[in-house]
Amino acid sequence: MDRDYPTPAVSVDIVLLTLAEGGLKVALHRREHDPCRGQLALPGGYVHVDEDASADATALRVLKQKTGLVPRYLEQLRTFAGPDRDPRGWSVAISHVALIPLEELRGVGDGVFHFYDVDQLPELAFDHAEQVREAVQRVRNKASYSTLPCWLLPELFTLTQLQRTYEQIFGETVSRGTFRSRLGIRVGDARPGESADEADILIATDEFLGGSQRPARLFRVNHLSLFKRACW
Amino acid sequence: MDRDYPTPAVSVDIVLLTLAEGGLKVALHRREHDPCRGQLALPGGYVHVDEDASADATALRVLKQKTGLVPRYLEQLRTFAGPDRDPRGWSVAISHVALIPLEELRGVGDGVFHFYDVDQLPELAFDHAEQVREAVQRVRNKASYSTLPCWLLPELFTLTQLQRTYEQIFGETVSRGTFRSRLGIRVGDARPGESADEADILIATDEFLGGSQRPARLFRVNHLSLFKRACW
Repeated sequence: MDRDYPTPAVSVDIVLLTLAEGGLKVALHRREHDPCRGQLALPGGYVHVDEDASADATALRVLKQKTGLVPRYLEQLRTFAGPDRDPRGWSVAISHVALIPLEELRGVGDGVFHFYDVDQLPELAFDHAEQVREAVQRVRNKASYSTLPCWLLPELFTLTQLQRTYEQIFGETVSRGTFRSRLGIRVGDARPGESADEADILIATDEFLGGSQRPARLFRVNHLSLFKRACW
Repeated sequence: MDRDYPTPAVSVDIVLLTLAEGGLKVALHRREHDPCRGQLALPGGYVHVDEDASADATALRVLKQKTGLVPRYLEQLRTFAGPDRDPRGWSVAISHVALIPLEELRGVGDGVFHFYDVDQLPELAFDHAEQVREAVQRVRNKASYSTLPCWLLPELFTLTQLQRTYEQIFGETVSRGTFRSRLGIRVGDARPGESADEADILIATDEFLGGSQRPARLFRVNHLSLFKRACW
């Protein structure tokens, strides 16, 4: 390798977001080692060049090893880099955001994670608070024109569950009609499997939630159509 | 530093986009050294931990040293990382996108850059073609709800110039009225300096382009309001 100067440390951090107690929460752990020992921080770890096939692979390996979690939605957020973000020297953190349903996070075990309201963050280690703020901004922005929030729900969900999810992400309630028109959902006469083309962002299943009285149809995301049509 | 494993090489690449010959173009150079000697590539270089304050600073230093350019708009795109993207081993490229008016690129000198239509890319070194495709997607997406394309123009521009810029980015022509309503531009009765609040994305100046016959008012971007209001 023809490099004649020192190279920075390269790690991956993961902003784990979930819905709990009516709002968007970030999952944090307390650091067991220096630097920043005892402080709240995002899960993360160094790139292992002998085993990781990509930065996403590093994120998945770190999460799996430290928590057993395998998030269905993982996205690279942004890379935070510089001489001052870590006292050990010039460092690169390839930040990721993962959306995980609360039930899956609960399976990790008691005390591993502490959950904080994303709009009322405590003091965090390194630049992790900045990473959380940027992740939340990204998720809220994407949620305004895509089905991203579906990843915070189980694979099958009702339209009411989906509406509550959007409302919790944005911190505002809307009417059923407004919700559907903003998201461009056309489900008035949906029949099972019918919507499986690119125009529809949800697919109706033939499963229902609830008892004999007004059971609610369950939907799943149409992976062919994660985004609303751009309006330019 | 308490690392007991090898760390990847860390570099920054810059996707330089401009408008020329009626369309969006990327500025490429021919590599003078191995690997990929003689191939078309993006400008880029390694992070220098002894002088760079951030990844953006690396991008600006590399551009300045190699071309003399100081882009007014520079944004981190995504980090490309893995064992196979560079034959020298596991590497991290923090990719950036810069928008530069053609006049500024012309000042760099003949033969430094070769310009290619972003939708008809030649073979590029490393994963640079992927970086260009992703940069173009990002710019087109952001252009659909922001004033991002203004950075491809001089600091002062007419509304017609701005409309042509959007049309070249998206590859389609629109009527004057459609253009203004899509961008949410309200300039019907604009007076100089008047629009300097957050609601207006452009500010009218008291300068004009053109001769005595129907001179066109010049505008500049309102930096307080780079984005249209989100519609969620």
